[in-house]
Amino acid sequence: MSEASGRSEKEPSEMIVHRTKRRVEFGDTDTAGIVHFSNFFRFMESAECEFLRSRGLSVKMDWEGQPIGFPRVAATCDYVNPARFEDLLDVAVSLDRLGVKSVTYGFEFTRDGLVIARGAVTSCCVRVLPGNQIEGIAIPAGYRARLQSDTTSA
Amino acid sequence: MSEASGRSEKEPSEMIVHRTKRRVEFGDTDTAGIVHFSNFFRFMESAECEFLRSRGLSVKMDWEGQPIGFPRVAATCDYVNPARFEDLLDVAVSLDRLGVKSVTYGFEFTRDGLVIARGAVTSCCVRVLPGNQIEGIAIPAGYRARLQSDTTSA
Amino acid sequence: MSEASGRSEKEPSEMIVHRTKRRVEFGDTDTAGIVHFSNFFRFMESAECEFLRSRGLSVKMDWEGQPIGFPRVAATCDYVNPARFEDLLDVAVSLDRLGVKSVTYGFEFTRDGLVIARGAVTSCCVRVLPGNQIEGIAIPAGYRARLQSDTTSA
Amino acid sequence: MSEASGRSEKEPSEMIVHRTKRRVEFGDTDTAGIVHFSNFFRFMESAECEFLRSRGLSVKMDWEGQPIGFPRVAATCDYVNPARFEDLLDVAVSLDRLGVKSVTYGFEFTRDGLVIARGAVTSCCVRVLPGNQIEGIAIPAGYRARLQSDTTSA
Repeated sequence: MSEASGRSEKEPSEMIVHRTKRRVEFGDTDTAGIVHFSNFFRFMESAECEFLRSRGLSVKMDWEGQPIGFPRVAATCDYVNPARFEDLLDVAVSLDRLGVKSVTYGFEFTRDGLVIARGAVTSCCVRVLPGNQIEGIAIPAGYRARLQSDTTSA
Repeated sequence: MSEASGRSEKEPSEMIVHRTKRRVEFGDTDTAGIVHFSNFFRFMESAECEFLRSRGLSVKMDWEGQPIGFPRVAATCDYVNPARFEDLLDVAVSLDRLGVKSVTYGFEFTRDGLVIARGAVTSCCVRVLPGNQIEGIAIPAGYRARLQSDTTSA
Repeated sequence: MSEASGRSEKEPSEMIVHRTKRRVEFGDTDTAGIVHFSNFFRFMESAECEFLRSRGLSVKMDWEGQPIGFPRVAATCDYVNPARFEDLLDVAVSLDRLGVKSVTYGFEFTRDGLVIARGAVTSCCVRVLPGNQIEGIAIPAGYRARLQSDTTSA
Repeated sequence: MSEASGRSEKEPSEMIVHRTKRRVEFGDTDTAGIVHFSNFFRFMESAECEFLRSRGLSVKMDWEGQPIGFPRVAATCDYVNPARFEDLLDVAVSLDRLGVKSVTYGFEFTRDGLVIARGAVTSCCVRVLPGNQIEGIAIPAGYRARLQSDTTSA
């Protein structure tokens, strides 16, 4: 809540793999007049998927003939300053950790440089078996390579 | 918006097949301090599913070994009076039309007898084919019979 | 559901006041693998607000020193073909009726020319009094003029 | 994801201040066939508000003639096992930390004893000033007393 600490601290811009914008919609807000806290998780997922799409990837796709997915295993968000209807937020996506079977993205939401929220989402890679059962697998090498490739979008 | 007309007009209580309640949650509201209009459609679906569950039915289930579903083909709502955080709404579900392949439910939301909203949702019956394709079918006779059976819940 | 009738019938493109796009997000879908029907109403509102913003208007703003708003009094949607995760929808907004105190927008969602859904939302103009009470008023003349002005965005 | 570790570990049931249930609705799920991860935050808030309501409290209310609120400053969730449409979840709310100006609730979601998710939400107490500005304050003594009172609901 402190505006003093509300400036972005995330220095290493090398980490940032994607930048996008998000307009706050009327339905995103609540009776306190600000974005409902749960909606930042939707904003994060949307930004993550936009990043993945820019590299020909997705959270749910066929990979080498096999349906794979990335169910979420953890999500967290710190709310620093409120955002309101029609605010245009800048969203920075960083690849915070790329494990053998899981990936963690970080997100920073700012408005004119003022930090609104910071969050992270960790997903694990699974293959989808008949009957919609899932089984954890290592992130396929080709998928991993695209995640790590340089990008011009940041 | 007229309070004069805000009293329930739906007379024939024989039509009503289910009654339930819905507490307005914080996340249901918007920056105008009232329930966001889109959420009444979630409330309707929830009440419909509760009705179906009470009869051993669902909008997505296996029926005689065949996966069936009820995708929505039309939805409508009139907003008469606002509802706010923590309001406890009474919801009346009526079976407005039962066709060969489709069903229309009506919904009336009231608070202490004052009408908040009235809506309707029409769904058509489909079977789900391999590859998640759908094909319109007649509502199975047994499913239809349960929909029409007398109920004590109303 | 008929693809034959799934082509857009809305001829008079003069009516269309705004065109935009909407990417289907993962959280917009449901367990049937398609966009949950309630979310089209959020999509409609977002497109309406984008149209209004392009003309310096909003559904909630100060107008000549007075807070005004446009609570929804009716909403309807017909679902013609399903939309899925990552689909990019074209959204056409039309000004279907401009009354003294209310306005009705129409919406058509298409994907590569195939109609996905058609809907409409009617709002009435109110001024917001102290204590968050509302009172219906005629749409202010200046607001109305901007709604009706020619636009290049369509 | 490990079922072995999926049994509840939260021992000290003295901490638990409220127990409730949550039925998974169709609109809560996503195209992976499970509850969308963002919705657990709505479930948490709903359970928190139900707890507060049982003690005559709310996240937004007048307290001694002064409007107060509890905006969220942090939220986190770990997803252990998936939940699906129509699942009936048991929700346990614990009062994990009661600070001078903030409060942290913990939440555990189980289904037939199997852990589905565990989360926490931290809110800070504010008073709402004219113009909807907010100012952090100590949680009022009377509010705090009710939070800490014994309860029979757990």
